[in-house]
Amino acid sequence: MRKNQENEIQITFQPSGRRVFVLPGTILLEAAARAGFIVGTPCGGKGTCGKCRVKVIGGCKPSETEIKLLGRGPVDEGWRLACLAKVCGPSTVEIPSSSLFTGGQKILESGSGAPVEVKARITKRYIEMTAPSHEDAKGDLERIKAVVGDVESGITVLRHLPGVLRKSGFKVTAVLRDRELIAVEPGDTTARLYGVAFDIGTTTVVCSLVDLVTGEDLAVSSGVNPQTSFGDDVITRITKCRQDVHGLSQLHGAILEMVRQLVTQACEDAEVDPLMVYEAVFAGNTAMQEILCGIDPSPLGEMPFVLASRKAVSMTAMEFGLNINPEASVRVFPEIGGFVGGDTVAGIVAARLDEYNRPVLLVDIGTNGEIVLASGGKMLGTSVAAGPAFEGARIINGMRAVPGAIEKVVIDDAVHCNIIGDMEPVGICGTGMVDAVAGMLRAGLLDEGGRIQAPSDLDDATADKFADRLVKNGEQYDFMLYDAEETATGEPIMIHQRDVRELQLANGAIRAGISILLRMAGIGPGDLEAVLVAGGFGNFIRRKNARRIGMLPAIPTSRIMYIGNAALFGARRVLLSTIEEKRASSLAEQVIHVDLSLDPDFQMEFGSAMIFPDSTVDAGE
Amino acid sequence: MRKNQENEIQITFQPSGRRVFVLPGTILLEAAARAGFIVGTPCGGKGTCGKCRVKVIGGCKPSETEIKLLGRGPVDEGWRLACLAKVCGPSTVEIPSSSLFTGGQKILESGSGAPVEVKARITKRYIEMTAPSHEDAKGDLERIKAVVGDVESGITVLRHLPGVLRKSGFKVTAVLRDRELIAVEPGDTTARLYGVAFDIGTTTVVCSLVDLVTGEDLAVSSGVNPQTSFGDDVITRITKCRQDVHGLSQLHGAILEMVRQLVTQACEDAEVDPLMVYEAVFAGNTAMQEILCGIDPSPLGEMPFVLASRKAVSMTAMEFGLNINPEASVRVFPEIGGFVGGDTVAGIVAARLDEYNRPVLLVDIGTNGEIVLASGGKMLGTSVAAGPAFEGARIINGMRAVPGAIEKVVIDDAVHCNIIGDMEPVGICGTGMVDAVAGMLRAGLLDEGGRIQAPSDLDDATADKFADRLVKNGEQYDFMLYDAEETATGEPIMIHQRDVRELQLANGAIRAGISILLRMAGIGPGDLEAVLVAGGFGNFIRRKNARRIGMLPAIPTSRIMYIGNAALFGARRVLLSTIEEKRASSLAEQVIHVDLSLDPDFQMEFGSAMIFPDSTVDAGE
Repeated sequence: MRKNQENEIQITFQPSGRRVFVLPGTILLEAAARAGFIVGTPCGGKGTCGKCRVKVIGGCKPSETEIKLLGRGPVDEGWRLACLAKVCGPSTVEIPSSSLFTGGQKILESGSGAPVEVKARITKRYIEMTAPSHEDAKGDLERIKAVVGDVESGITVLRHLPGVLRKSGFKVTAVLRDRELIAVEPGDTTARLYGVAFDIGTTTVVCSLVDLVTGEDLAVSSGVNPQTSFGDDVITRITKCRQDVHGLSQLHGAILEMVRQLVTQACEDAEVDPLMVYEAVFAGNTAMQEILCGIDPSPLGEMPFVLASRKAVSMTAMEFGLNINPEASVRVFPEIGGFVGGDTVAGIVAARLDEYNRPVLLVDIGTNGEIVLASGGKMLGTSVAAGPAFEGARIINGMRAVPGAIEKVVIDDAVHCNIIGDMEPVGICGTGMVDAVAGMLRAGLLDEGGRIQAPSDLDDATADKFADRLVKNGEQYDFMLYDAEETATGEPIMIHQRDVRELQLANGAIRAGISILLRMAGIGPGDLEAVLVAGGFGNFIRRKNARRIGMLPAIPTSRIMYIGNAALFGARRVLLSTIEEKRASSLAEQVIHVDLSLDPDFQMEFGSAMIFPDSTVDAGE
Repeated sequence: MRKNQENEIQITFQPSGRRVFVLPGTILLEAAARAGFIVGTPCGGKGTCGKCRVKVIGGCKPSETEIKLLGRGPVDEGWRLACLAKVCGPSTVEIPSSSLFTGGQKILESGSGAPVEVKARITKRYIEMTAPSHEDAKGDLERIKAVVGDVESGITVLRHLPGVLRKSGFKVTAVLRDRELIAVEPGDTTARLYGVAFDIGTTTVVCSLVDLVTGEDLAVSSGVNPQTSFGDDVITRITKCRQDVHGLSQLHGAILEMVRQLVTQACEDAEVDPLMVYEAVFAGNTAMQEILCGIDPSPLGEMPFVLASRKAVSMTAMEFGLNINPEASVRVFPEIGGFVGGDTVAGIVAARLDEYNRPVLLVDIGTNGEIVLASGGKMLGTSVAAGPAFEGARIINGMRAVPGAIEKVVIDDAVHCNIIGDMEPVGICGTGMVDAVAGMLRAGLLDEGGRIQAPSDLDDATADKFADRLVKNGEQYDFMLYDAEETATGEPIMIHQRDVRELQLANGAIRAGISILLRMAGIGPGDLEAVLVAGGFGNFIRRKNARRIGMLPAIPTSRIMYIGNAALFGARRVLLSTIEEKRASSLAEQVIHVDLSLDPDFQMEFGSAMIFPDSTVDAGE
C-alpha cells in the first residue's frame, strides 16, 4: 500500500472534502486528478483559456500568467489556474462545477468528477415499535414487517434481530436494498450509509469510499496489485491459472487480501464503520474481474477468448469475502468480450461516450490498453496488450511514479529532468520515458525506426551537445540521463536501446488499435472531436509527447483531454445510482467487441506502428 | 451416534429398500416404525383385525394366530401380521400400501410412511453444446442460457463453470431450482438427485436421505443431540444463551456438527455424493430451530415467548454451514408460536390432520410435548414441558431405549420384564417406566396420588407377592424390579418414589394440555375419532398403559394410533413436494397457538393431572 511521504503536502478539495497528499511543486490539475477530479482544460493546459479556474486557500503563489489572465482582484481572492498553479503548502481547493471536465453534451451538469444524482439502491428507515406483549406476541421479523411492509430477508438479519430489537428498546433502523431487509441496526443510523467503488487494475488497485446519502467521497486508498509478484501482465497470470493447480487460488487470495486492506484503510481514514458499508462495485479488465470473483480465467488463455459471463456478476459480501456488511451486495461490472472488460464499460459510463454527437475516442492506457471509438451511433471496443512499460516495468532503470522517479524529461540544448520528491534520481517512470523518447526523436538522437544513433551519425551541433551521453553497449548505443555520481543508487540512469524497443511495443500496440478502429469506422484522426485519455498513467503524460511518439493520433492537443481514473469514476457512478447501473449494462451490450487477435491487419498495423511518426506531427498545436 | 450392536439383525423394507437393524424378538410393527413405516393396526395390535398384513422373505416363523387369521396358504407364501410376527433372522419385508397407516380420508392413497407424489423443486437437465468458436464466442453462462433459457445464477456456479464445460466437452447437466441455475455438472447426472430431511429433537436428531427422483428413502442416520450435555431440556438451553455470551455459539456449533456427521453417515451408507444433495429440510421445536439457525433464542426465555420469525426460514447450505451442495437450499419449518414449532407443523402435515372430518388429537411425546387438536374446522396447538423423563433421563435408574434397558414391564402375580438385547438389565427406559407405573397402579402398589405403598398398606394377597420388593428409603418406599445380583451393573434396579414423581410431572403436563384443548374446543375425549401418537417414545409405549396412567385420554385403544416420527415424515414430504411445502406454510398459519403459560386454568389442571386416573379407565378395550 502506498504510504504518504513525509514531505508530501495535504490538499483538501471542496465541496467534497476529499483529501490527497502530493509533493511540493505538483500542479493543482494533477493533485485534483489524484483526488479523482478532472478539471477541464480546453486549451490543453497551456494557461491560455482560463477555464480551469479554482479557488485556493493556503500555500499556492500566483504566477504572472495567472495575474494577467484572471486579474489582480480574483487572484487576491484566491483564484488560480489549475493547469499552472503549483502546490507549495497545505491548501484547501474549491473546484467550481463549471471547471470540472465533462464529456458529451451535458457540459456543465455532469462529468467524470462531477456529482451524479444520488439514487442508491440502499435506503434506511428509522422505526420505533412497541415491545411484545401478551396481546401482541408476534415474531420479531413480523413486527418489523408490520411497519416496513412485506420484505425479503436472509438468515444474517434474523440472527441479529432478537438482540438488536431488545438492546435498542425496539427503536431501530431498517436497512433495505430494494424490497430486501439486509440489516437492522439499533437506534437511528439513517445518516450513515456508505459504499465502496474499486478499480482493479493489472498493476494498481484503487478504492473510493463514498457517502451514499450525499454522494460525497470520503476517502481514497490505493496500492499495487499483489498479483504483480506472480507476473506483471494479464497473460502471465492467466497462464499461471492454466498451468498451476493452485494458481487461481493464489491470485484470488492475493487480490482479495489487498481489497480487504484498502477497505480497512479507507474506513479508518474516514472513521466509517465497515458494517455500514452496504454496497461495493468493482471494475477491472476481464481477467482481473474473473480472478477477483474466484473464476478460473483459463478460457481467456486460448482462442477465441471466452468469458465465464458477460453480464454483471452479483453476490453478497459474505460470498465474496469482503469485510463490509456481510449482506452487502458486491457487484462486478458487465463486460464487452475478450479482454475488453468492466473497466472499459466503467470508462464509457464515466466519459458519457454515448452522448457525443461527433466521433470520440476513449483510450485507457495501462498494462492493458483499452480503446473505444464512438462514431455514427455505434461503439467499437478493443483491447491491446501494452505491457507494463508505461508503469515503469520492463524498463531497465524503470520504476513506478513514486519519489525518486524521473517523471519529466525535456531535451533542448541540454537534458533537463524533473524528479518526484526533490531528491537524487532513482530511476525513470512511464511519463519520463515518453518525454525522453519524444525529446530524443526531436533532437535527432533516435531515428524513426527506434534506433539510438551512434555519435558518428549525428550532425556536429547535436554531437557537441549529446555525444558524451551516448554510451556504446555492444553494437548499440544507450542514452545517459544521469551518470553514476548523480543518482541515489550510485548507478547511471540510461535510456537503453532495449528500453526504446519496449516502449515501441507498448506504443505500437495502442497506436495499431486506434488505427484499426478508425479504419473500421471509416474515419480519420482529424474527424475526432476528442480523444479522452484515461488511466493512472494517461493522466500524467504530456499530450504533445504522446502525440510525437505516435501513441495518440495527430490531432491538436486541445482535443486531447485527460479524464483521470475513468474506471473508478464509472464504478462510483454505478454505486451511487441504479440508473447509472442500468446504463452500464445497456452500454456493455451496445459496444461491438473488436478482437484484434482475429484481425489479419493487426499484425501488419502493429509492425508499422512500431515506427515512430515523422516530425510533422509536431507541427500543429 | 447410535452404533449397531453385533447381535442386531438387518431388516430391509420393500419397495423403498430402507434398512434398519433391530434386536431378535422385535415385532415387525416396531421394526417398520423404526424404518419410518407406520403399519395401520385398527384393532390396536391385538392380532384380531388382520389389517397389518406384510410379506416376509427370511427369518420369521408364523404364530398359530397368524395361521388361523391369514390361512395356511398365505402364511406359506410369507404373509404375516406385523403386530405379532417377531424378527428372528435377516429378512426382507414387503409392506403393501394397503397396510400402511393413513390419516384422514385418503385412507389408502397416502399417509405418514406412504409415498408422496414427488414434485421436487430441483430439476436436472442434460444438455450438449457446441464448443466456442470464432463465430460463436459468447460467454460460458450465456452458452448455457441459450439452451435452458434465462435463469438466475450465483457466483458458485460461475466459479466452476469454465472448468466443468471444458472438462466435459460441453456436455453437462444443469441443476435448476425453479428458474435458478444452482450447479452445472460434467456429463449426464440426471438420475442422481438427492435431499435430506431432519427431525431436530431436544434429545434425538434423525436424518433421512431421500432420492428426489423416485421419492425413495436411501438411508437413515440418527444420534443424540449433543446439546444435551449443556442441559437436557429446552429451558436450560435457552437460559444458557441468555446468561453465557458464548452459549449460543456453543449450542449452535454442537448441533451443526452433529447434523454434518449425520449427513456424512447417511451419504456413506447410501453411497451418495454429498454434492448431489441439493435440498435440506429441518423440523424441530422453536428453540431447537432457532439455535440450529444460529438465532439467539433468548426471547423464548421470557414472557410472552416471542419468536425471531414464525415463517419458514430459508438459506443456502453455504450460509447454513451444511456439507451438501453449497448452493443447496436449506429450509427450516414455519412455526406456530411460543414453543409450538416446526416439528408440530411437520406432524400436522404428516398426519394430514386437516383432512379429518371428526375431532382428532395429535400428541407428539418427547422432552417437549406438543399437542394439536383439530375440531370443527379449527386447529388448536400447544406445547408442554414434559421433561426428559420419557427418554429415561431424570429417572434414577433411567436410560435410553438401548441394549440393557428394561423396555417392558408386566406385573401380574409376579414382575416380568423384557430387556432390549437379551442381556442382564442395566436400567429402565421410558416405556418400561410407563408399564411399571401402570402395573403398580393396577396391582395396588401405588395409590392414585402417586405414593408407593408401604407393605403394611397392602392387602395380604398383594403383600405375599410383592412385599419383599418394597424397600424402605427414609419415610418412603421404592419398588425393586431387579436385585443387585441380577443386574449388569451389580446395583439393584428400582422404581423410586422420586421417579414416580418425575413421571407424574411429565405425564401431568401432557394430560393437562390435552384437557385444556378439549375444553377449549368444547368436546370430551369420547368425541375424538382418533388420538395420533407421534415421537420416538410415543411409538413404543403400550397404549393401554399410557391410558392407565392418564397420559392419553380414556378412549378405546383402537382409536389410539402410532404414527411414528411424524416430524421427520412431515419434513420428508416437504422435501419431496413443493405442494406439501405450501401446505405446511398454510397449516402453520391456521393453527391457533394456545399459550398455556397464560392460561389461569393450566396450573390447576396440571395439579389435578398429577393424580392418576382411577381404575375405571381400564374398563374399555
